[in-house]
Order: sequence, then structure tokens, then C-alpha cells
Amino acid sequence: MALLGASPSGVRAQAGSAVPRELARLVAANRILAHEGVVDAFGHVSVRDSRNRERFWLSRSRSPALVELDDLMEFALDGAAIDARGRTPYGERMIHAAVYAARADVHSVVHHHAYGVLPFTITGEPLRPVVHTASVIGAEIPVWDIRTRFGGTDMLVRSIEQGRDLAAALADNTCVLIRGHGAVVAGASVERAVLTAIYLQVNANVLLQALPLGTPEPLSVEEIERSAEAQFSPLALDRSWEYFCQRAGVDPG
Amino acid sequence: MALLGASPSGVRAQAGSAVPRELARLVAANRILAHEGVVDAFGHVSVRDSRNRERFWLSRSRSPALVELDDLMEFALDGAAIDARGRTPYGERMIHAAVYAARADVHSVVHHHAYGVLPFTITGEPLRPVVHTASVIGAEIPVWDIRTRFGGTDMLVRSIEQGRDLAAALADNTCVLIRGHGAVVAGASVERAVLTAIYLQVNANVLLQALPLGTPEPLSVEEIERSAEAQFSPLALDRSWEYFCQRAGVDPG
Amino acid sequence: MALLGASPSGVRAQAGSAVPRELARLVAANRILAHEGVVDAFGHVSVRDSRNRERFWLSRSRSPALVELDDLMEFALDGAAIDARGRTPYGERMIHAAVYAARADVHSVVHHHAYGVLPFTITGEPLRPVVHTASVIGAEIPVWDIRTRFGGTDMLVRSIEQGRDLAAALADNTCVLIRGHGAVVAGASVERAVLTAIYLQVNANVLLQALPLGTPEPLSVEEIERSAEAQFSPLALDRSWEYFCQRAGVDPG
Amino acid sequence: MALLGASPSGVRAQAGSAVPRELARLVAANRILAHEGVVDAFGHVSVRDSRNRERFWLSRSRSPALVELDDLMEFALDGAAIDARGRTPYGERMIHAAVYAARADVHSVVHHHAYGVLPFTITGEPLRPVVHTASVIGAEIPVWDIRTRFGGTDMLVRSIEQGRDLAAALADNTCVLIRGHGAVVAGASVERAVLTAIYLQVNANVLLQALPLGTPEPLSVEEIERSAEAQFSPLALDRSWEYFCQRAGVDPG
Repeated sequence: MALLGASPSGVRAQAGSAVPRELARLVAANRILAHEGVVDAFGHVSVRDSRNRERFWLSRSRSPALVELDDLMEFALDGAAIDARGRTPYGERMIHAAVYAARADVHSVVHHHAYGVLPFTITGEPLRPVVHTASVIGAEIPVWDIRTRFGGTDMLVRSIEQGRDLAAALADNTCVLIRGHGAVVAGASVERAVLTAIYLQVNANVLLQALPLGTPEPLSVEEIERSAEAQFSPLALDRSWEYFCQRAGVDPG
Repeated sequence: MALLGASPSGVRAQAGSAVPRELARLVAANRILAHEGVVDAFGHVSVRDSRNRERFWLSRSRSPALVELDDLMEFALDGAAIDARGRTPYGERMIHAAVYAARADVHSVVHHHAYGVLPFTITGEPLRPVVHTASVIGAEIPVWDIRTRFGGTDMLVRSIEQGRDLAAALADNTCVLIRGHGAVVAGASVERAVLTAIYLQVNANVLLQALPLGTPEPLSVEEIERSAEAQFSPLALDRSWEYFCQRAGVDPG
Repeated sequence: MALLGASPSGVRAQAGSAVPRELARLVAANRILAHEGVVDAFGHVSVRDSRNRERFWLSRSRSPALVELDDLMEFALDGAAIDARGRTPYGERMIHAAVYAARADVHSVVHHHAYGVLPFTITGEPLRPVVHTASVIGAEIPVWDIRTRFGGTDMLVRSIEQGRDLAAALADNTCVLIRGHGAVVAGASVERAVLTAIYLQVNANVLLQALPLGTPEPLSVEEIERSAEAQFSPLALDRSWEYFCQRAGVDPG
Repeated sequence: MALLGASPSGVRAQAGSAVPRELARLVAANRILAHEGVVDAFGHVSVRDSRNRERFWLSRSRSPALVELDDLMEFALDGAAIDARGRTPYGERMIHAAVYAARADVHSVVHHHAYGVLPFTITGEPLRPVVHTASVIGAEIPVWDIRTRFGGTDMLVRSIEQGRDLAAALADNTCVLIRGHGAVVAGASVERAVLTAIYLQVNANVLLQALPLGTPEPLSVEEIERSAEAQFSPLALDRSWEYFCQRAGVDPG
């Protein structure tokens, strides 16, 4: 795959090639999440290989703001690198591997430590959707604590067993919080995963400001379902993808 | 109308043409609201056609930060596009249509989801003016809930009936909040609507910080009326329009 | 005075001319206060004329971010413009006039609506220095309410009588808050007034975050006095002036 | 040392020279801390001389955002400048001198007034790590008050006695807070000290948002120790150093 061996300055994909478009969008996803403050030095985003569903793409160990096409590595669903070429993978790639293995409907995974989301991982206050643009985060967001089953650790999800335990906590939901650590967001596409991660943060920030004022009125389950469908309609999805790409200075792909 | 068929790189209007100046200012309004964080991927702003008061201008479905002259579409007061030329309109154009139909004094409408305003849509805490620059938001700001009359929806104002119900809640006020969704701001001109939307956000942010400290002293009704008049004097209006244009990098028009 | 008639692109003063250096610094002060978010579309800063202490310099009615040398106008201590040349002055120039008339030690005045300061104008929560860099704001910061003596107004300080009442409330202090409006900061030089305004905002923001955590320990009166002296030593003053000029992209002068 | 006598435009170190690489990284550290808002006009960062452990490097009195190689001065552990060449040192260099003298394991010291950290210096609310990226700040963060032993001062750490008292409060910890003033962060390298200072601020901001929601669950002592080791592994340290250098626009060195 010549494109990955080269050092392209932009992230525009080659015409007529399915995978590079996916990968170009994965690079864009990294830059967008960094630009919106969802990830900082840490955090990562992956996409399932559409031609081989037993594999996924994820950057080598690098901050998302800096990720380029050449940094993308392919992994099997046990977290093994297919063709490392000397590149060091993220220590937490097992999060992605375990979620793809457990959820056939998931094609993209974001792991992040967005500052506005973190308070909900350590206080017991539930993070539920209260504004319609955030309906896509889903009605239920569990909190997973690595300490429950694995005791005193360095808090990173390092083994496939830890990843599976986290994926079991995620269950059929879209997001799961990790105590004192961050969140995992699953999506049916890289665009959906990115937008869900962004509006998870928006919703968290609105809640942080609303809670001192009174008990926030949540969206009803019916509103969450119907609104999420509207937010992921091509009309809304294309509009927001174009917007966030423009802000991050990347090609919409 | 040749100007709209072209692809102008800037937003400066043609000399001697009344409508293009209005439309150039509408493009500027989109960019300003995006730059000030009043709108993000979503939200929109419209202006009534000064030559045909039964019509209004609004961008095609696109994030305000990206709107250009060519994106502007004209609509009738039932929300029908006059000359779509293949462009897809916003799903929520009925908000604008219904407000123009109900309020002859309104020449511009902003719909947005400003993050600082959202807590006041879900907590019952009233959003009232507490600083003089925000007097323009008016003494009374109702909260409208689509669920009250339309039950479980995707929370978008999609039909003219929903738009009319929202316009009835707005009544003679300048702003109305929408539960779990955002706000609508009406203005006698595009400059006024934009500045009101900006200072609605400023006032919301001040209130969010003041409420944990004690009960904020509101402006009196007399202060609101007299201060709003001062804020919308040419002296203050020109100064702030020039300022927000400069920040957004657009021509004051 | 040729310099003021010209349209200089920068703000560097002419060598060997005392007034232009003062005025160049006044332009820099406008830009700095705008860059640090102390002022937005509104707010202004003035400097006493060092050659004629019965006069002061202040921009024409324009947002501080945009002020250039040509915008500066000279005023008498009753607020009358010396040589308007068609330029429109700020409606609230009486604030400056009255403070200079009342306080021979004051050589620069800032009037602003910094968002973090506003909660302290409407809640009764006192704004007192809690961090050493903000010692310069002084131990006592009164709150003035225009309604007390002038009833229902547009909340602007429009007459010299209103300005005198405000100056009387300021008394011998460095800062005074205005209910539902903003603040006035007085300084022995334009650099001091600017830095005091900036750290008034910093202190307000720290207090807003500290108050929900517990009762903040204030600086003692002795600490305030001794620390303020240190903060206004040439060592600290030059360092911070250079810093804020660099951030605002203006010449330190 | 020719390099220091020159006026290099960048901060890249000369090949084959141990000290300049250290100093280039010290310049980068200044810029990074400024860019991340850990320091503003005030605050400073130093590094111990790796060839002479009785000496350390620190900028002349200048805001960190502006520091260049030529500004770096060498000091003995009593705070005396080795070769001042007319440059004025920081008034608080004794903080650095005293910490290096007390702690052989420390090779870099940051002193700052990060706004998010300040509330914890004046309210009695303990600043403890609640998110894994901040485990590096350590389990215990004491608060030192200059008033306890030195009475009413200008709040600056001016004498070596004051520095020693502060270093004694720091004891074997990584961070110490200073009442109404700021913090000191000690690191085994300049990269570690910088990252610790950044994540001290992140942790403070998360706590400020979490505390109104409920009692935050802290990291366990075992989690702090094991996670800190992971955060300072070459994998994580290189990734974050590259990231923060890129944001600040400096060469990783």
C-alpha cells in the first residue's frame, strides 16, 4: 500500500481506493478531537477495517494532534500489530480490540479524557443527555472501575482481559465512563464516534453549569431515540462533519 | 440577481443595491455568531426581505461559520423555498417563518444552542437581565417545551404548526428559550438580533457565576427599557457591530 | 500636533516628544485590555495629560480593540472636547472627568465590564484580594449603585453630577464596582491602571472558583500594602507590561 | 560558552554539547508553561546544571513567554548569580536555590500561580489526584503560609531562609502550595517538572468542577504510585513532551 509508505503532507485520500479514504478520515478524526479539546496529549481514535472486519486501524503511540497517515498501524482483534515496522503502539490498544470483538455494530472507537467529562467519573453524578444535540450519547452511560476486578493498577487498560471487562460494562450502550480516567465512545462510523465524543463533552459542560441551579430536566427516552436519529441523518451529520473539519484545518475527505 | 449566482470571495455588497447589502450583512451575521460561540455546527440566522415583507433569507443547510452569499436561499412565510436550485434548506426553517408571520416588527431571527444559555432551558432558573449591556434581551424570557403540545418528538421544530406554537410562546418578547434545545432571538434588524444573541449569552454566563454567590439583583423594568434604548442607539450599535465584525474577520458592510 | 493628524500604522511614539509616548501607551492600553478580555465592544481607558493636568486623553466612541492614535481626543475636566474634529466621544467620558477632578494622584482611568467582575456587582459578595498578584486592587472595593441617587436611568454615567457621585464612592480606593454595570479602576500611570484592571479580573475569577469550596482566606492589610508595592516595583511592572504588550501584539513604547 | 553570547533565533541546541541541550529544553519549558496558562506575566522554571550539581539555570527577570537562551543565568545554591552580565535576576530565585539544596533528587523546579490551583491555596480544600494523568503530582500536597514564620510580608520568597522554610514544607513531596500565592513543583527532569505542573492544573480544574457535584473518589496510594510510573515511562513522557512543544511552537530539543 504505497500511500502509507509515503509521507503525504495533507490527508486527502487517493481516488478509487476504499481504505485510504477511511484512513484519511481517521487522521482527520484525530485532528478534530484534538482541536475540540476532547483529547490532549493522550487519548486515541480507531476505525475498523471495512475490508477485513477482524482488523482495525489506530495510530502509533502519538498525540492525536500530531497523527499523520504514516502513523496508522493495523491491529488484529487480540491487539497484535499486523505490520509494526518499528512503530510503537499505544499501551491501551486493547480497549479498541475488545470493543470491536464484542460489538459487530461498532466501526469506530474513541478513548479520551475530556476534562468536562472527568467529574462524572468520580462523583456518582450520572451523565445523561439534557440537550438534543447530545441525544446521540444514549440514555444510559455506565461507569466502569478497573479496581473492581483488577485491584490496584496503573489505571491503564493494558490486557485483553481488562479490555473485555470494559467492553462488558459498555454492553449495548454508546458510551462508558472509566473512574478517574476518562471515557470510551463507540460509533457506527468514524464520523459518528467523533461527533458523539464532542457532544458528550458539550452535554457534560452544560450539566456542570446546570446542576448548581437546580435539577436538570432530562430528555425522555423517546426524545433521545428520535433526536439521535435526526442528529445522525445525512443532513445533520454532513453539516457537522464539514464544520469540525474546517475548524481543525483538515479536508472533509 | 447576478451576485448570488457568482462566487464572491468576500461579503462586501454591491453599491446601489439594497438587497445585497442586507444579504452581505446576513453572511457577516453568520460568521459573527459562529466566532462568538453563540452557534456551533448548528444554529442559524435569517433576515426578512426588505422589499417583500412576505419573504425572508436564510442559508441552505450549512454551519454558520461556513456560510457564503451563494448559500442564501429565499423562503415564503410558510417555509417554502422560492428558488432552491438544488440546495437543501435547514430542517428548522419553520422557526423563522412562523416568527416573521406573527411579528411584523421583527426583521431578523437567530436560532441557537449557546452552551451558557442551555442550563436555563432545563432547570426552571429564570434568565433575566442583570447587566446593562444585556438589557436588550428584555424583562421577560419565556421557556417553550415542544413536549407540551407535540409529545415525544425528535425535538426539532419541523412543522409550521410547531413554529406557530413557539412564536405564540415568544409573544411580544425578544427572546424565548426552548427546553433542552436552545433559544430564539428576534430583532428589528440583523445587527440587533445578533447583538441580542451575543449579550443573552454574556448575561447567562454572568448569572451562572453569580448564582452560587447569592441572589443576583436584577435590573428594574425601567432600567431595562431605558438601557435597551441606549444599547441600540446608533452610537452603541455601530461601535459593537464594527467590533464583532473585526473579530470575525468580516467587512462591516 | 502632526502625529495625530497622520494615520500611523503602528503605535510607536515619535522620539523626543513627551505626549506622543503617553498616547502611544494609551493606544497600547486599549489593545491590551481588549486582548485580555477586560473590555469587549464596550469599556474605555484614559490618561491624564502630563503637560496640562486639567486635561485628559480618551478615544472617540470606538471599541478598545480598534483604537488608533487618530481616535484619541482631548477633554477638559468637565468632559468637554478640546478639538473634536467631527469625532463622537464616548457617552460615559464623565467617569474619567470626575475621577481626575477628584483625585490629583490619578493619572489613568479604566472603565470596563469584565465578565468575571460582574457577579460581584450584583450579589453583595465582596471582591477582596486573595492572591498576591492582585494586591494592587486594594483592601477596600466599594459598590456604587446609580439608582440610589439618580433613580431609574439607562444605567450609563452621562452627567458630571453622576460622575462626581461615582468618584465620591471611589473615594481614596483604587477600584469601585458599579451595580449591574462594571467597574472603574484608577492608577498612578496607564501601566498601573491596566495591570490593576487585569488582576482585578484574575482575582475575581479565583474567588468565583474558591467560594464554592469554602471561605477564602484574604490577604491581610499589611500583606496587601507591601505586596502592592512589590507588584508595582520597576522589576515587576516592566516584566508584566512587556508581557501583556507582546500578547496584544503592540510595541511596549 | 559562545552559544549564550550569541542571539539565536530558535532554541535548537548545538550538537555534541550537553549543557546547551539542557538549556534549549529550559527555554522550551518556559514557552510551554506560558502557552498552557500555567504561568502568566509571572512564574519561572529552572534546571539544575548536570555538570555542576551545585548550580542551576534560571532566566533573568522576564515573563516565561518571552524567555530566550540569552536570558538564562547561572546561580549558586545560595542564589548568587555566577555571571550576571548586567542582567537582573528574579526576586524569588531563592525558591529554586533552596529546593535544589534540600533535594538531591530534584533537577528542575517550576514556580507558578496557575489560576485553577489558587483556590486550593486559600480554602483548606485539599488538592489530591483524582485522575490518572495527574497521578504524577503525588498523594500529598502540603500548603505553606509565609505568614506563619515570617509575619506580614510582601508575600514573595525573597530570602534563603524563607526558601528553606518552603523547601522544608515541600519535604519529600513533588508539589507544595503557597497560601494566596501559587505553587512549587519539583521534578527529576525539566520534562517531568513541566508535565507535573500542567497536570496539577488539569487536576485542579477537574476538582473545581467535581466538588459541587459530590465527594470525588480519590486515586488510591497504590494507583498513584503505579500510574505515576506509567505517566513517566518514555512512551508517555515522549508523547506528551512532543505534544506540548508542538502547541507552544518550540523544537522538542
